[in-house]
Formats: sequence, C-alpha cells, structure tokens
Amino acid sequence: MQRNQGYLSLSRRNLLSLVGITAGSAAMYQAMVTLGLAAESSYKGPIQLEGDPKGTSVLILGAGLAGMTAALEMRQAGYKVQILEYNDRAGGRNWTIRGGDIITEMGGATQECRFAEGLYFNPGPWRIPYHHYGLLAYCKRLGVQLEAFQQLNYNAFLHSSTAFGGKPQRIRDIITDFRGHVSELLAKVTNRGQLEGEVTKEDQEMLLEALRSWGALDKDYAYKESLHTSDFRGYSKLPGGGPGGAPLPSKPIALSDILTSRLWASLANFTLFEYQTTMFQPVGGIDMIGKAFAREVGDLITYNAKVTKIEQNDSGVTAYYEDTKKPGVVRKASADWCICTIPLPILSQIDINVSARMRAAIQAVPYLSSVKVGLQFKRRFWEEDDHIFGGVSYTDLPISEISYPSSRFNTTGKGVLLGCYTWNGTHSYEFTAMPPEERVRKAVEYGAQIHPQYRDEFENGVSWAWHRSPFTLGCAADWSEEARKQYYDDLCQIDGRIVLAGEHASYIPAWMEGAILSSLDAVRRLHQRVVGG
Amino acid sequence: MQRNQGYLSLSRRNLLSLVGITAGSAAMYQAMVTLGLAAESSYKGPIQLEGDPKGTSVLILGAGLAGMTAALEMRQAGYKVQILEYNDRAGGRNWTIRGGDIITEMGGATQECRFAEGLYFNPGPWRIPYHHYGLLAYCKRLGVQLEAFQQLNYNAFLHSSTAFGGKPQRIRDIITDFRGHVSELLAKVTNRGQLEGEVTKEDQEMLLEALRSWGALDKDYAYKESLHTSDFRGYSKLPGGGPGGAPLPSKPIALSDILTSRLWASLANFTLFEYQTTMFQPVGGIDMIGKAFAREVGDLITYNAKVTKIEQNDSGVTAYYEDTKKPGVVRKASADWCICTIPLPILSQIDINVSARMRAAIQAVPYLSSVKVGLQFKRRFWEEDDHIFGGVSYTDLPISEISYPSSRFNTTGKGVLLGCYTWNGTHSYEFTAMPPEERVRKAVEYGAQIHPQYRDEFENGVSWAWHRSPFTLGCAADWSEEARKQYYDDLCQIDGRIVLAGEHASYIPAWMEGAILSSLDAVRRLHQRVVGG
Repeated sequence: MQRNQGYLSLSRRNLLSLVGITAGSAAMYQAMVTLGLAAESSYKGPIQLEGDPKGTSVLILGAGLAGMTAALEMRQAGYKVQILEYNDRAGGRNWTIRGGDIITEMGGATQECRFAEGLYFNPGPWRIPYHHYGLLAYCKRLGVQLEAFQQLNYNAFLHSSTAFGGKPQRIRDIITDFRGHVSELLAKVTNRGQLEGEVTKEDQEMLLEALRSWGALDKDYAYKESLHTSDFRGYSKLPGGGPGGAPLPSKPIALSDILTSRLWASLANFTLFEYQTTMFQPVGGIDMIGKAFAREVGDLITYNAKVTKIEQNDSGVTAYYEDTKKPGVVRKASADWCICTIPLPILSQIDINVSARMRAAIQAVPYLSSVKVGLQFKRRFWEEDDHIFGGVSYTDLPISEISYPSSRFNTTGKGVLLGCYTWNGTHSYEFTAMPPEERVRKAVEYGAQIHPQYRDEFENGVSWAWHRSPFTLGCAADWSEEARKQYYDDLCQIDGRIVLAGEHASYIPAWMEGAILSSLDAVRRLHQRVVGG
Repeated sequence: MQRNQGYLSLSRRNLLSLVGITAGSAAMYQAMVTLGLAAESSYKGPIQLEGDPKGTSVLILGAGLAGMTAALEMRQAGYKVQILEYNDRAGGRNWTIRGGDIITEMGGATQECRFAEGLYFNPGPWRIPYHHYGLLAYCKRLGVQLEAFQQLNYNAFLHSSTAFGGKPQRIRDIITDFRGHVSELLAKVTNRGQLEGEVTKEDQEMLLEALRSWGALDKDYAYKESLHTSDFRGYSKLPGGGPGGAPLPSKPIALSDILTSRLWASLANFTLFEYQTTMFQPVGGIDMIGKAFAREVGDLITYNAKVTKIEQNDSGVTAYYEDTKKPGVVRKASADWCICTIPLPILSQIDINVSARMRAAIQAVPYLSSVKVGLQFKRRFWEEDDHIFGGVSYTDLPISEISYPSSRFNTTGKGVLLGCYTWNGTHSYEFTAMPPEERVRKAVEYGAQIHPQYRDEFENGVSWAWHRSPFTLGCAADWSEEARKQYYDDLCQIDGRIVLAGEHASYIPAWMEGAILSSLDAVRRLHQRVVGG
C-alpha cells in the first residue's frame, strides 16, 4: 500500500482518532498499518470492484474456497457467474468427514466413516492463524462461529522412540528445562566476563536479571530442583488443601539428556508465526467455512462436473466436462472469462490452450504428500488420564503427530483424535501406499506407544491420503525457491482470458488464506481488465 | 498416595493395560501417577466417605465453592446439612456481573451495571488451569461447559510508558527477539570454546543446532532481519496471493532496547505452571460454576444471613445470625459440627470460641488487595483494528493489565474488556481508595495510551475493589512463608467441633481449586472423626 507521508504531520493519536471518527474501522486499520502498528497485509478489507462489467460472464472452475470467493465477489459486482465442481459437494479441501460419510480414494479404496454423532475429522485444513485476515473477514461476514484452536499444550507430549527409554516427555518439561539451562549457561559466561565487547556492562546487569526471571533461575543464577523452578515446570506433588497441602518440587531434566533426545527440534512448531496464539477453528468442523460460502453461491454450482478440456479464443472460454453421474455424456460451459482453481496435478492433465509459459508453470509445481488418520475412542482418555486438553503431541514415529480435539473439553463420552499427520518425507509416502484400513491399524499401533490406552479404547478410524485424492492428487503446492523464481509469475498472469487462482498461486501455500488472497488478487486484476479496457 | 513397589515387577505397558481393564479410569490414573506419568495431586478422584454418619448434622458457614463442595459431599454421605450465606446469591467470590446487576461496596458506593445483553465481567476468579483437577472434576460432574481461556496471545501488547516512546510492543516481538538474541549470544560463546568444562564437546555440537532451531538463527548463528526470523516474529509485509504476494522481512528489536525497556519482566506471566496452556473458562461467565453447585445444594442455603457469633461446646455448634433483610432480628442455627468457610478478615471480627492457637491463626493472615474494572465498548476494536483475540496485555501503568474476551471471537457488536487488574502494591491501594466511577474513568484514561480507540468507543464500566467487598474484606489470603510456618497448621486443625475451609486453608490461595481441595480435605478429616470414633 502507499504510505502517505503527509499523515505524519499529525500526531499519531490525533490521526487515529480523526480517522476513526470519520471513516470507520477499515480506515482506522489502514491508518494503523501506515503508522506501523500492524503489519502490512495483502488483505486490504472488502474488495472494491468499481465500474460496471456490463453483463460480462465468468466461468469458475472449482468450488473450493478460491472458486467460491471469486463467485461471491464477482456476482456481487455484476458478473454472470457459473461454477463447475468435480465433487458432489462444495469446499474442496475445506472438508470435514463425519459418521455416515463414504469416501473413495484413487484406486477405488472406499471407507465408510463410523464416527458417533457430533464427532468429526478434518482431513485437510484444520486451523486458522489470527493473521489470516482475508479468511477471518469472510468468516465474520458469513457468520462462521469460531473457537480457539490449541496448538501448543504444555501438557501434551514430545516423544522419541530412542530417548528416555521411549517414555513420552511433557512439552512443559522440555520447554522449561531447555530455557532454564540455556539461561543458566548464558548467565554463567556473563558473570565470567565473557560477553565483554558483545554487550555493554550496563546491559549485562540487565541481561542477568532478565535471564533469572525468564529462565526461572535461583538467586545464584542456577537452574535446579526447587519450588521456584517448579512454579514453572510443575511439581512432583501438586499444592493442595489442608494440613498436608504443601507442594514438593520436581527435578529438571539434564541439558545433556534434552540435547541428545533431540526433542528440542519440535519446539519450533510452537513458536512459528503461523502457529502462534490465538489460532482458531470453526465450531463443528472446518467445513463450516465451505458450507457458509456455499449458502451464498451454491446456486451457481454445477456438481459432479469433471472438466476434460478448457478452450479459449479471442472472445471467450469454453470448458468441456463430463457428468460423473452419467459417464460418457460430455457437456460444455462457456463464458467471457475463466477463473480456474483446479489444483495443478489435475490441471496439468487437462487439455488447455494457454501460453507455453503458463503451461510450463502448470507442469512445474509438485504437490506435497500428506496423510491424516482420524481415530475414534470410547472415552476421552487423553483428558481423563493424561490431562491433555487440545494441542499436539509430536513423535519420531511415522505418525508424526497426535492432535487432541480443541472442543467439548472436559466432557464424557467418545472422542476423535487426529492419530496421524504425516507431511512429505518417507513416512508420508509409506502411509499413502497402504490401504486405508492398514493406515488406521498402524496409527493405533504407533499411537499406543504414547498412549497405551489406545489398545482398550479404540473403536474405529478413517484415513485420507492426499496423493490418492481424486480431486487434488496431492495436498498442496510444494514451491521450491527456484520454482518460485522461474514459474510463479507465469502461473499468476492472466493468460488470454484465463487466470488461475488457489493456494498454489500464493505465497501461503497449503493454507486457506492462500486460496482466498490468490482469488481476490485474480478477481481484482480480471475486473481491471474488463472495466479498464 | 502409597507407592506400591510390587507394581514395578510388571512392565509399565502390561500394568497400565491390566489396571485399565479391571478398574476403570480412576485406577488407571493412580497407576500412572505411581509410574511417574502424572504429578501426584491432592485431588484423588471423587471423595469416598465410607461409614454411616447416622444422622450427624453439619452447619456450613458460607455458600462459596468451599461451602457448597462440603454440602454436596456431606449430604450425599448421609449428613444433615444446612448452609448460612451472607449474600443473596451463592458462589461467593465465584461471581459474574452482568447488565442490570446492582453492587454495593463497603462505604455504600453503589453501581448499576449497564452492560448489554450477553456481556459480562468476572470481578474475582476468571480462569482455570488444566491441573486444577478438583475443580475440573466438579465442572464435569455438574455439567459446566468450558472453553479455552487465552492467557498468552502473541499479538497482544507489552507496554512501558518509558520505553519505545510509549508505543506498545507486540508480545510476539519481545518473546521472539529476546530468545533470538540470547540464542545468538550463547552460540557465539559456544563457538569461541567458552563452554569448555561446562558442556561436553558432543553436547556443544547439539546445543548449537538446538539454539539455531529454537532461536531462529541463520546458518552463521546470527539473529537478524531475514525471512527466516520473520517466519517466527512476523513480516513487515505479510505473504499474499498473486504476482505481488511475496512477503517482506521485519526487523528485530535490538537486545539492548529490550533489556532497558524491562518488557521482558512480563514474560514469566506466560510461562508459569499456573498459566500454561490449556486454561479454561466456563462458557458465559465464571459464575456458571457457582450456579451449577447451587442447583445441587441451593435448597440447603439460607441467604442474607450475617453470622455474628459462633459458639461451640462438647455436643455441638451454634451460629447466631442476623437476617440482613430484617436488621435487628437475630436467629440461630445449630448442628453437631461446623465447617466454617468465612474469609478470615470477616471471621476475625466474629465472636467465636476456638482455641487460642486457631484464634491467633485467624488473626494472622492478611488478605491481598485487588481491583478489577470492566469496560464496555461500542465495538470489538481490539479484534477489528489490532487483531488481538483474547489474551492479556501488560503495562507499567496503574491498570497493570488489559484482558480481551476469550469468547465470541471475530463477531460484531459491543464487547467488554477487563480494563484494569491491579494486584497488591500501591496502584491497587490507590484504586481501592477511589470511588468506583473514578476507577472506571482512570482505567479508560490509562488504557487509551495503549488503545487510542478507547476514547471514541467507550460506553460504560463497572468496578470492584476487593478490600471494600462486604463479604470478604479482601481478595484472598496473602500467606508469607513465615506465616505458613507459624500459623497454617493451626488454621487447618479441627478445633473442637469446628473446622475451617476455603482457599485460605490451602497452598493454592486465590484459586478456586484451593477452596475445593481445602474443603474436601476438611470433609475427609471431619468424616473420619465422626465415623471413626
């Protein structure tokens, strides 16, 4: 955005007040961005499509979030819009599986989900960072109710099958003890004068004080067993009531044990900008978002439409598609322009007459592999026995993660865990190669090493391997830095009368926000082309 | 609890499986404690009161959480129970103020809360740690619906009126940059060989790797402006969609600036065991807990009963009380035993014939001072403009904290903030001394230094100063280490036929868990006295 230097002649306070009064909250936000109070975002508030498209038509391919965002905004701006969708539902990867759902992967493996009423599993996206402003704006506008998603739960586990005798460690202990030991070491070298030249004498004093506070060190800058460190890492006996209520301290894990366990490698998962508090999930399943969009634009969607060919000329675009419920019957849909959100592994197999550069870009981007497994248990033992309410446990076992539901906390009855979430790499390919039932069996077998209760409490499971997903053939675009340089701009250009959109045409791949911002950007440019010339 | 060493001859897995199958989840949990998988807790599952009390009666003074817990369990065990309560409601400090509520402090200052429908303010307790097992067990048993309470929000503010020109800093930046700089410094001294003798050569290698990962350092172990550090501390321009979607890096704050700002001092608020994820709050207000208890034992409560004298002899206890709705009329209630949960500043003013030691203990414990202010605003500007969803901002201004609601995220309409939460110290006393309207005015004035939107968006407020609270005369017991040694055991003893309970008779003062565990412990001991002989 443009930074208006003239703003700066007013005081910050007066400016904000003035802008707030006269122009409402969107203007206030823009002013705050200008003043550096908020990071500059690609989402600049509700899209403004000025100028009359005069009956111009748009064909949108794919009723995922990118496609439906475009449909919503373009119809509102006066376009004639239609959408073709391969699946028999809207949402695309924004998808939730519930009891009774029947799902089929490439190769024909079919599963019927047998989850109890009210339980669900999100095979694709499942959480929303607070700085995904575009997505949050649509959630607000479309009335999608949100609740906090727990990413970091101090009481969840870090697990290495080769460390601590295979015994899972509480995240709390690894975080607190690693920070404590690091603080102790740095305090030690500071006190020995070994930071001379790096840090001023005055700052060294303050650094020592800060390390003591932050690292839970004692008055001698030591990190060791005490009630003080236990105030951070927990007690061996919790404080209680009455005469015997005094707490007992817990014993920190030695630095060497933490280092060699490599459990510290998972800590970044909790501090990345993408995973910082506050994260969200829709109440009731991630597909509440897709469903909310579909309430707006569902009337524009033709379902079960498998696009086989996309043809453009100087006057328009025609898509040929097969009705998957009536194989062999080919239909067509035409419009002045086309926004194509079909994932690249599918699009690369479709006959489409675009420029050689765009064609090369479409072919160039591999898609991430990912497998998720949802497991239903008789009871929420992770809460009842292990006191883990939401959050993620990380393990070096092939399942990689176990994630606990961030809803219905502290209730009785059955529950569904994310029992496996592999993401690229060997394990992901191995899981993809297994039949779905085998993936579930493996997820239970591995998970039982962390939660032995699995053995008695497991009821049923369901799994999705994205490389076997008929509508995506992969999880999300896997852009390398080189591919970005070579192909990204070509992929994003308006090619004749066709423009691509989706997470693959963004710098936020694999996130819903990427799909939405890419779509808004494509819409903006397309509209400019239509009304501008 | 007893540790049965015999257990250890079985493998951990077999044991857990065996215990789980034969004895259910409570036994499983105890087994896990024995094996060191969970910290030992004062809460040992639902209280077991075996033996027939044969019509023994108990008089409970105070219908807060301690009193109602005792009433619930003792009636169930066969006791005749009655409760006297000073207020015209149950719950005590477990209390929520909503629109239409009229509240009066000592000295007569009366406020009518003018919050809009559905908005609320918790003047007392407001959050529940996941390891407050007793409280969570009652929430489950009584059907209190919980949601996540956000304590740490990376996007909330740390504010010092004397640092960074008074401009609030995002918690994210302070956390990430402090950790980054500390990691860089420690990596530097490690590479210089200055940890020789402290850390083995092999561990040093691993330490460097861990610091790079944890501290977001680059390949040369430097913490500096880059897209890599921005993946943790956020970008100056967020990643977006389409051709212009590339992110831009943000610039870390210098270590010296962080150190001299003293903003690091607030970071411990996010890492203390008491504040670690996952925390909870009841959906709709903290008093959902008190109300749930009152649904169970409300029929036992006599409200508006101001106890003036407690008399015991060899055969029982009699409490004399005034009906506050009919001043001057003194009534009495008698029982075989008495559980007194009256806060010590009140109890110390009541005529009660207990031993000299218990009397001394009752007199010995000062109560914390605390003031909270709730502020209603026309819109949720903290979410709309500042992208702060839940969590706490800390400031060196007298208001100390601003806390944002952890519910109704991303919705439109009015909202209520916790606009001031002072806790002991000068500011707390200053706020206590002000009339309630003045506290609200001050909270708005100070808060506007952090959120300039306060000026235009503020609508109304309400405040509670616990030292002016007629039913407590303070916030919670303020035990010094010396007082604990000298008085705590005396305070907790059964004195003749009277036993005290409440957060003041626990090692978890000021928390609801303290009240509940203290009560359960008192009930257990009293019951033992009754049925044991």
